Order: sequence, then C-alpha cells, then structure tokens
Amino acid sequence: MNVKDYMQQTGKAARKASRELARADTAQKNRALLAMADAILRDQSKLLDANAQDMEAARKAGLEPALLERLALTEKTIVGMAEGLRQIAALPDPVGEVSEMAYRPSGIQLGKMRVPLGVVGIIYEARPNVTADAAGLCLKSGNAALLRGGSEAFHSNQAIAACVHEGLRAAGLPAEAVQVLATTDRAAVGELITMPQYVDVIVPRGGKGLIARISAEARVPVIKHLDGNCHVYIDDTASPDKAFDIALNAKTHRYGTCNTMETLLVHTAFAEFILPRLAEAYWEKDVELRGCERTRAILGDKVRPASDEDWASEYLAPILAIKVVKDLDEAIEHINHWGSHHTDAIVSEDYGRTRRFLREVDSASVMVNASTRFADGFEYGLGAEIGISTDKIHARGPVGLTGLTSQKWIVLGDGQIRS
Amino acid sequence: MNVKDYMQQTGKAARKASRELARADTAQKNRALLAMADAILRDQSKLLDANAQDMEAARKAGLEPALLERLALTEKTIVGMAEGLRQIAALPDPVGEVSEMAYRPSGIQLGKMRVPLGVVGIIYEARPNVTADAAGLCLKSGNAALLRGGSEAFHSNQAIAACVHEGLRAAGLPAEAVQVLATTDRAAVGELITMPQYVDVIVPRGGKGLIARISAEARVPVIKHLDGNCHVYIDDTASPDKAFDIALNAKTHRYGTCNTMETLLVHTAFAEFILPRLAEAYWEKDVELRGCERTRAILGDKVRPASDEDWASEYLAPILAIKVVKDLDEAIEHINHWGSHHTDAIVSEDYGRTRRFLREVDSASVMVNASTRFADGFEYGLGAEIGISTDKIHARGPVGLTGLTSQKWIVLGDGQIRS
Repeated sequence: MNVKDYMQQTGKAARKASRELARADTAQKNRALLAMADAILRDQSKLLDANAQDMEAARKAGLEPALLERLALTEKTIVGMAEGLRQIAALPDPVGEVSEMAYRPSGIQLGKMRVPLGVVGIIYEARPNVTADAAGLCLKSGNAALLRGGSEAFHSNQAIAACVHEGLRAAGLPAEAVQVLATTDRAAVGELITMPQYVDVIVPRGGKGLIARISAEARVPVIKHLDGNCHVYIDDTASPDKAFDIALNAKTHRYGTCNTMETLLVHTAFAEFILPRLAEAYWEKDVELRGCERTRAILGDKVRPASDEDWASEYLAPILAIKVVKDLDEAIEHINHWGSHHTDAIVSEDYGRTRRFLREVDSASVMVNASTRFADGFEYGLGAEIGISTDKIHARGPVGLTGLTSQKWIVLGDGQIRS
Repeated sequence: MNVKDYMQQTGKAARKASRELARADTAQKNRALLAMADAILRDQSKLLDANAQDMEAARKAGLEPALLERLALTEKTIVGMAEGLRQIAALPDPVGEVSEMAYRPSGIQLGKMRVPLGVVGIIYEARPNVTADAAGLCLKSGNAALLRGGSEAFHSNQAIAACVHEGLRAAGLPAEAVQVLATTDRAAVGELITMPQYVDVIVPRGGKGLIARISAEARVPVIKHLDGNCHVYIDDTASPDKAFDIALNAKTHRYGTCNTMETLLVHTAFAEFILPRLAEAYWEKDVELRGCERTRAILGDKVRPASDEDWASEYLAPILAIKVVKDLDEAIEHINHWGSHHTDAIVSEDYGRTRRFLREVDSASVMVNASTRFADGFEYGLGAEIGISTDKIHARGPVGLTGLTSQKWIVLGDGQIRS
C-alpha cells in the first residue's frame, strides 16, 4: 500500500475510533490506562530489546550523544512511563463537564459541555517515552491519537504500541483509538498534516525547524511551541532578596528548558545596586553575560556587548542577556517586541506597576514575584502536559487534558420555537 | 507602494495599535464606540452618496440582485449600524476578567486572565454594514482590526472608516486600531492571511468557496464557518406537539440561514404517525420534500427519492430531506457522518436518550426539544456575533466578544523560586 492510501486508511479508522472514545466513560478509560501501565511493566524486557535494536542502529548511523540519550529506554524510564499512565488515570476526566447553564429570555436553557477535539495527530522526535505519554493524555481526554515518532525509535515505539493496544482491548476500547504509525516514510507526515477530514489538530513536539515546517504546511490547526525567550524585569521597587533569588533561579535552575530566563531587564535606578551582586552569582555558575552599554558600564568589560540578536535569542545555555531600562514602559515594550510570548515575570512591590505588567505583557504566562521556571504543566496542577503552546488561540501556555478538549453549546428546551 | 509593502506597513501599524488597545480601559473603548455611532448618524448623507457611487458601478458591472441588495445602504441600515455600535458599547467588557485564581502547593497563586487576541483580520463580501459591526466587536474585545470588504463596497467602506476613525480619535485611541484596507487589489488578501507576525487570527465571512480558499492558503489561524447542514431527530418518545412545532419551525422560520434544518430524521416507530401531518404543513408552505424509501412509502410519490447528495446538502432553500431511522444510534451516526457539526436537535421525552444525544452528537450546538433556529449569537445572549464557527478548536458555534479573546495564565508570588 502506498503512503497516501495507508494514511487515509489510518485516518479513517482514527475518526471511527474517536466516536467510540467520545462516549467511553471515565472508568473504562481509566481501566485502559492502568492496563497499559501493567503491560508496559510486564513487557519491560521486550521494550528493552526493541530499544537496543534502535540504539544499535542509531549508534551506527552516528546519532549525536544528546539524541541517543533521549532515545534510550532504561528500567527507570520504563517504570516512569507506567507511572505516568497511572497518574493520568488519577486525573479528573474533563469530558462531559457542563458549565454556565442558564435560562435565556426565550425559555431555552443554554450552557457549555466540554468535549474531545476528536483526532489528535502528534509528531515528535525519537523519544519513546512520549509515545506512552501522548497515548495516555489523548485517551483520557477522549481523543483518538495518531502518533508519529522519530524514525530512529521505530522498534521501541512499536513495542510500546503493543502494550497500549493491549490496554485498550482490556477495557473494551478499539485498538484504533491509538495508532502509532507503522511507517518511517517521511511522506506520512505530509499526509498526516493535510487530512482535515480525519485529523482535528496537530501537536508537533521537537526542534524549532520541525515545528516551523509543520506549521507552514499544515491544513489542520496546530498547537505549537516555538521559542521560549523569557524575561525577568526587576523594577526599582523590587524587594532585593526576591529579585536576587528569582533572577538567579530563573536563569540557573536549568539551562535547557523553555521557561528559563534568557534576558534580564533591570530598572535603571536599581541596576547599580543589584547587578554587581547578581553578576557575581552568575559568574560563580559560569554563566556568560552579555549586556547593553549601561550594564557594561556597571559590570565592566567581562560582559560582552549584547546585540539585537541577543535580545531575540533563546540560548538554552548558560548565557544571559542583560538590559538596563529606564522604566516599566520600556520593559513591557522590550518584552512584547523581542520576547516569544512564552513566560515573563516582574519583580516589584508596587501595586500599580504589577497590575500594568500583568495586563500589558502579551505572554502565555505572566508572573509577579515568582520564577519563570514555574510555567510548567505539573507546577500548574494540570497533572501532565502534552506541550506548551506559544499560540494565542485555543490554548496558551502549558497544555494539559483540558487543552485537548473544546466546548460545545448545549440547549435544553421544552418545545421552544423561534418566533 | 506595491501591495506587499502596503500590507506590511498596515500590519505593522495594526500590531502597534493592538498594544494600545489591549490596555485601553472599558470607558475609553465605549466612548469610541458611541462617538462612531454619532459620526455615522451625522454623516448619513455622505454615506448614502458613497454608497450610491458603489451601487451605480455595481449595477453597470451587472452584479446580481441579491448582491446589490446586500451592498445597498439605506437610512434604515445606517441607523441599524449606529444602533449596533451602541449595543456593543453596552455589552460587558471581557478583557481583563480573571478566573480560577487558586494557590498551588509551591505557594504561587495561579489563575487565568482574559486578553485580546491581538490583531484580527476580517475578510468579507460587499456588505458595508459589516464594516461598522466588525470594527465595533474588535474594538470592544481590545483587538486591532484589519478589514477587507468586497471591492464593490469600496467607497461605502471608506466612508464608514472615516466615521470609525473619528470615533477612535475622539476617545484618544489610535486610528490604526481599525484599518479598512485602502486597496481593491486581490493580492492584498493573500498578504493579509500570510502575515503571522502581524495578524493573529483571520475571520472570513462569505461564501463557501471564499472560506475554503482562505483556509487552504492561510498561515494564520482561521475562525471559519463552512456548512450549516443541521438536523432535527424526532424520537419515538417525542411529544407530538413539540415534534411538530420544532420540525416546522426549524425548516420554515427562515430558509436561507445556516441554522435552518436541512434533514429531518424520524424514528421508524413514530414515522407513520408524525410524517403525514408534517408533510401536509410543509407542502402548505411549498417546501419540497425528498425522502428515503420508507419516507416515500408513507408519504407517496410526491416525495422525490433522496440521494447521498441530499444528506450532504445545505439547501438554504425550501427543500427538506427526510430519513426514517431505526433508532437513536442510527440517528447519531447519520448526523455525525453527513452533518456539518453546526447545530442538531433531538425531540424526545426519554432521559437516557437525550443525555446520549447531547454527549455523542459532535456539533457546535446540540439541542433537546428546541428549534435549531436558536443557534445564534443574539439568542445565546452574546449581544452580537462576528460569525458562527464550525471549527472545533478555540471557538465553536456563535462567536461573540469572548471568541475574540483568549486566556493567559497569571501567577502571583511572594518571591517563590523553583527547587
């Protein structure tokens, strides 16, 4: 069968399965999730064997160490996958939640019901644990899933898929509810993102290049995460200790995460006071600093001059850009212009300024006196996240089960007609 | 200036204005709306002159009567435009609404704030009243608007734009908050829908062909309305009077609206009882009936055989397809397969069946014992609507002010860092 026909058939089966999933009750979905977890633990050696096959091929192909690390399954990651599925089973089911029911003057009673999106296509790199995670989140939110993992993880993903299917069957749900594409043909992705009749939304997870390409070519809505160019702005009304702790934590807690601060903005009246102390701490952790002229005047030549490229950069590395700004307006202007609308924080004790920052900064997460590192599905209590969205429509920021649903209108009447 | 440069400049100005609008307070936005309404009433004769110019050119170009009717401004429609703006001013401002604030175990307080989308591009046919309406809805929801109306309405739209700008200026808001494209070049649309850096969402209003083309070519999220192929299913547990009233109202209240019923489904055990009575009423109103075999066996040869094409059709005309189904399952299956996920209703007194219908029918509006004609922004209490969405993500069904906003996460802390 050619790729187009295969994808059409897969899509059609997913659409059909999505109808069954939409009416599956919570207990049935949870049974499937727990059975998947059991199968994964039981089949541990099978999963490790399949993964060894992938790892060998990947090593031969000269895959980079960082990618090999993501590809590897260990006993620990396998237990983690099973644990993740059990956590998803324990989360509240968002499907069917009815809200805002109220009578209208016509006598109809109007409200909203939360419902699955339908079929979710997820495209990700060679990280086999994402297969179990994505399957679990889609299932719990009542969506059929079409999963396309990086081809280097093919055998690992198929072995995980077998456990997922066993769990679905054990709960009386169709195996087509989660389909892990059984092809490594790149054309399959092109098909997946252009079948609006079978796929309701695409979630790409991976490098910027992949996501940008998918967004450009998709004919289906995409929930995507592009850059995480996050800011902390230290106002001159900041508490020095909070400012110090937050600016240090936001940069150095982890360097490679999307909610890590990449540019620090400091009010000009506070810069001479706080920057030397902060720079000391950053340098102790080998963080390279790049700064505006004023920053360099305060901190000296050890700070490289920052260019426009720095203001636009998501370093994902121990590098920090620093800019001294003259006031809140300049800070907000800088963030909205150069940032990626991901997560930005103000440190301030001023009521009016924090209110303005919260309202005017156009980012998925806007924080007062807290580290940007909190922008995360687990910290937000979503239980799990399918990704973090930098889009503005549908879902912003961490996307959990609710982000994989939408609301339909429901109307309860007693025979009302329109006159 | 070429079209590309013109659109880039327009987009850039819109993005800039959107920042100002996002922080404009409610009173300021309302002042602008009321000043627009005043200017429109005062400039009535200017608007009529501009419209006369458009009408003359359109008549010469041989525009169809239905399109000429939409293009025409009258004293009444001008008063209607002003009234519409005043109604929008009277609606609650959705921007800034904070909800779900709650403490997390880390000590941060997390919630959501409703915020404008940013810049909304609206593409519509030659209906000048849409210019005022769209400008008002975007303004109230804090969005900058890029409006591209049908070229036949060029002079009318520019005259309305002058009133809109006067209103904006009167309230101290930038005129670029609402830009009515000053070009009839078709290439402008192609630019408008491919500037994600300047435009956050596109709302196309018009014929199916236009909307399908824009959806296919856009590089920006689209809130769209495709078909309105709506169903009423009469269960064998239906109250006969409710069934009769609703089935008649849903089809005959208005023929050309998207929430009009196009296919009637009847439970086989109820068909012989209700169909003759209903057919009589439809025929009295000159509604053409097309039916399945069973329907024709009951109603006779006056009913044309219905084909698959009929099940898929949005007639927008006095034509109705009728199918007798064996049970609720077949009804839901038919609706989900052939329908357009717009609005569908069940007439039934059975608790379990109405519950299943509400949950399992995958449409933007799902109704029990009410006419599909209620699926409408005004009936739903949205005050006004920018359109009705048949999409599943972001906004489903009637889209009012809230549909032109999204929610960002806000975090209030006291110096929390992540450990």
